[in-house]
Amino acid sequence: MYVVVNAAMSADGKLSTRRREQIAISDPDDFDRVDQLRADSDAVMVGVGTVLADDPSLTVDDPDRREARTERGDSANPARVVADSRVRTPPDAKVLDGAAETYLLVSEAAPTDFVEEMEAAGAYVVATGEDRVDLTTALAKLEGEGVDQLMVEGGGELIFGLFEEGLVDELSVFVGPKILGGRDAPTLADGDGFVEKFPELDLTGVERLDDGVLLTWSVDGRTE
Amino acid sequence: MYVVVNAAMSADGKLSTRRREQIAISDPDDFDRVDQLRADSDAVMVGVGTVLADDPSLTVDDPDRREARTERGDSANPARVVADSRVRTPPDAKVLDGAAETYLLVSEAAPTDFVEEMEAAGAYVVATGEDRVDLTTALAKLEGEGVDQLMVEGGGELIFGLFEEGLVDELSVFVGPKILGGRDAPTLADGDGFVEKFPELDLTGVERLDDGVLLTWSVDGRTE
Ligand SMILES: NC(=O)c1ccc[n+]([C@@H]2O[C@H](COP(=O)([O-])OP(=O)(O)OC[C@H]3O[C@@H](n4cnc5c(N)ncnc54)[C@H](OP(=O)(O)O)[C@@H]3O)[C@@H](O)[C@H]2O)c1
Ligand SMILES: NC(=O)c1ccc[n+]([C@@H]2O[C@H](COP(=O)([O-])OP(=O)(O)OC[C@H]3O[C@@H](n4cnc5c(N)ncnc54)[C@H](OP(=O)(O)O)[C@@H]3O)[C@@H](O)[C@H]2O)c1
Repeated sequence: MYVVVNAAMSADGKLSTRRREQIAISDPDDFDRVDQLRADSDAVMVGVGTVLADDPSLTVDDPDRREARTERGDSANPARVVADSRVRTPPDAKVLDGAAETYLLVSEAAPTDFVEEMEAAGAYVVATGEDRVDLTTALAKLEGEGVDQLMVEGGGELIFGLFEEGLVDELSVFVGPKILGGRDAPTLADGDGFVEKFPELDLTGVERLDDGVLLTWSVDGRTE
Repeated sequence: MYVVVNAAMSADGKLSTRRREQIAISDPDDFDRVDQLRADSDAVMVGVGTVLADDPSLTVDDPDRREARTERGDSANPARVVADSRVRTPPDAKVLDGAAETYLLVSEAAPTDFVEEMEAAGAYVVATGEDRVDLTTALAKLEGEGVDQLMVEGGGELIFGLFEEGLVDELSVFVGPKILGGRDAPTLADGDGFVEKFPELDLTGVERLDDGVLLTWSVDGRTE
């Protein structure tokens, strides 16, 4: 499986404000690029923190791109994947609206009634890990379901978890022309943080886009 | 006064690890650029957090650059400035080693005996603000001492403070090829964070440097 992490961060590395309110960091050209990346992926993943904060639909916006997908025999939208160990996704979340397949990655500690509620809402529930989703096993299961290219749209806790497990192949970051600040604001990679061994990157692309810049990195040891 | 903030951050926006341990983010080309920027400045500023974490000397490394400064009638090294409201700078800190003039910006709450100890160590103590350095007033006082170009080298708390006061003209950030992660790691701009009005930037330069990229931004409304 090829895993691409894609995010927009402020010039100071933040994904949103300390209130976890979504802020327009990207510009139209970048939204378009992200829509294409979604259309090129088999599944699009977020953490439950992003579902709770932003309630994204994660579907492909451009009808032509959806049509191109169906013409090549795929579903109109890529599958949606939410990492949500104990099922905090609300039943009325947009990721459960039926516009695409949805996988809910939970842990074995997920309450049975919540799991049943999600299944009733149409989600495929995949349980791995004791208290927290075991991302390595969960992604292997998704690969078994035909997910060869996975796009990860955040947030910072999930992205850190994926780097920690060595699961990231590529990182594309739009750096936008704003300072958000805040020692408690979400950053591109949160979690506990690395202290000794750090994932090393190779810069594969630098592209000015509107008033920001798109940086593309490949992860050492993952991509040949 | 023209204020340039310069820092090196990881691809995920961190200045150092969550242990506040300094990590090599820059490459040799970037060190050289930073040395030139120091040599071109009248003073180089950090917050006391950086003094405590890294004990930097903030002097110009390259002897030719120091000589060029003295030839044009300047001191060999730019002045050093530490924002340190209550005098936490240790008397044996490198910024007090006599290699350059040192201004200690303190608040009116700074204990008199600590202030005297700093003056005995050769520092010029500038008191502004009740409990915390009033950066606007303090920088105006530095300008009165002949500081026309001020380079700020971090950390994230001081940088946020300067953006909050609208004191930053230019931001140059080397984005290095590493993921540090950590919700508690220092970022380029920490502090409380902005929630409504955000400093807006203009991208004035994008330059690939070694394995990273140097982004240069001017701050809207400061630089014409
Ligand atoms: N600018 C952008 O591109 C962008 C993109 C996305 C999000 N955002 C912003 O980011 C913020 C949300 O980010 P976030 O970091 O709070 O949340 P997140 O990364 O979306 O979700 C984190 C949650 O995922 C769950 N999870 C399950 N297994 C995990 C594992 N193995 N490793 C890590 N997490 C795992 C955890 O909750 P459980 O333990 O309960 O499972 C964790 O708290 C919002 O403010 C949103 O606006 C911005
Ligand atoms: N990668 C890089 O380029 C780079 C550069 C520099 C530092 N760093 C890293 O950054 C970390 C240190 O950063 P930091 O954010 O902890 O410390 P910092 O910004 O260097 O210093 C912050 C301190 O400055 C003092 N200060 C006085 N007046 C202020 C004001 N008006 N606004 C804000 N601060 C004021 C405050 O202490 P008082 O209230 O006691 O005065 C504050 O705690 C270290 O880990 C260091 O390695 C990295």
